[in-house]
Amino acid sequence: MSESPRIVTAALVVIGDEILSGRTQDKNIAQIATWLGIQGIRLAEVRVVPDRTDAIVEAVNTLRARNDYLFTTGGIGPTHDDITVDAVAEALGVGVIVHPEARAILEGYYATRGGLNDARLRMARVPEGAKLIPNRYTGAPGIQAANVYLMAGVPQITAGMLDALSGTLEGGARLLSETVGCWVHESEVATLLGDTEQAHAGCQIGSYPFWTEGRAGANFVIRSTDPLMLAACTRALIAGLEAIGRPAVAGGI
Amino acid sequence: MSESPRIVTAALVVIGDEILSGRTQDKNIAQIATWLGIQGIRLAEVRVVPDRTDAIVEAVNTLRARNDYLFTTGGIGPTHDDITVDAVAEALGVGVIVHPEARAILEGYYATRGGLNDARLRMARVPEGAKLIPNRYTGAPGIQAANVYLMAGVPQITAGMLDALSGTLEGGARLLSETVGCWVHESEVATLLGDTEQAHAGCQIGSYPFWTEGRAGANFVIRSTDPLMLAACTRALIAGLEAIGRPAVAGGI
Repeated sequence: MSESPRIVTAALVVIGDEILSGRTQDKNIAQIATWLGIQGIRLAEVRVVPDRTDAIVEAVNTLRARNDYLFTTGGIGPTHDDITVDAVAEALGVGVIVHPEARAILEGYYATRGGLNDARLRMARVPEGAKLIPNRYTGAPGIQAANVYLMAGVPQITAGMLDALSGTLEGGARLLSETVGCWVHESEVATLLGDTEQAHAGCQIGSYPFWTEGRAGANFVIRSTDPLMLAACTRALIAGLEAIGRPAVAGGI
Repeated sequence: MSESPRIVTAALVVIGDEILSGRTQDKNIAQIATWLGIQGIRLAEVRVVPDRTDAIVEAVNTLRARNDYLFTTGGIGPTHDDITVDAVAEALGVGVIVHPEARAILEGYYATRGGLNDARLRMARVPEGAKLIPNRYTGAPGIQAANVYLMAGVPQITAGMLDALSGTLEGGARLLSETVGCWVHESEVATLLGDTEQAHAGCQIGSYPFWTEGRAGANFVIRSTDPLMLAACTRALIAGLEAIGRPAVAGGI
């Protein structure tokens, strides 16, 4: 048997009172999770914290220590409630400086938009030693400080920053998945699911029920880093469902 | 001046590999946040953790200790990956029992759906001493164990459970909010926002920028538990925006 491939993990801290108040539906968790999966990095945990320095520092320090990478979203804009840079610098134990390249980028961006002012210049502030992550939409860059990646709160801007980072982070074994749908109550096939998972080392089967117009169904997601074991587990599950007269729908319902 | 009203807080633990893989877009954070706000309870922090006992126990024990209430979503179904009841019981240091009333509910629900089996009976298991939260959709109840409220992962089912809980939890001062929109770069009014917040004790102003067809705008959300201070702060912000020729849009854009 070959050596187990290394699992590389990331965590995410979503910073924002607007998420905790229910005003804004978060989109960054799913977006960053999906992007990380493609990079071969597993999103291990997420915390949503308010715009408060102590809460950000606690989350950043706990999560950056036990994951390969830490992402944050939110709080890197020009207004008084944007405190992420200062909080991350505090967590890392470094000062905050104006990054010359970020300043130059912002000067260029705002040249035709009223010029740089104190608020706009705030977006050139970074923790000492940090690098910039390009933002093709609004100029103001994302920031990499140690293993912490500071992204925007607005999902489209974060999408652009993720594009810029694609392929640059070291990943590990990609978690592969197959989805199988079935018109069945998951409670009818619970034993089959558990037994099939048990029989295929390194595979996990997740069961996600739904109800559509009174009809019960479920999607079963099989995950593994090993493509052969994943295929075997998926085949076994499909065969097991067919054996009880519940044909599987490849790709899910 | 009157005594400050007590702030009542809750935390939320979202349990589910499907959220961390990016497969499923979480809807429960916004749904529970909004519902809590109406109950006079503030959502203080959220964690998303995988389907792993140690991760659930850590999050539950940290968050239930420092908040009045803790909610969880996910992992209370009939299949092998549903481990929330056992993990919460472990966190609380109690055993797991079959709740007689939950068993009776499930016997009734499944009477015309193939009868109770071992998997379905799993949904009657609760931490010792727990109470049930009615689920009008699929029978299987939510669970209250000490200050921990275990809800479903499927958002519609959780919505029904929240309905059943409405008005039953002790709340505190409601956090009130007003939203003001404006076609302006937030970086043009950063000083105005900060100064206006400073001048109105107990008010926070959040600034949420957006770009629509190349045009920059922002919504400003003013929050306070004091309705008079909230109104004064909102009026001051609207006046400040008008003074620089940027008329405010009441209710946001």
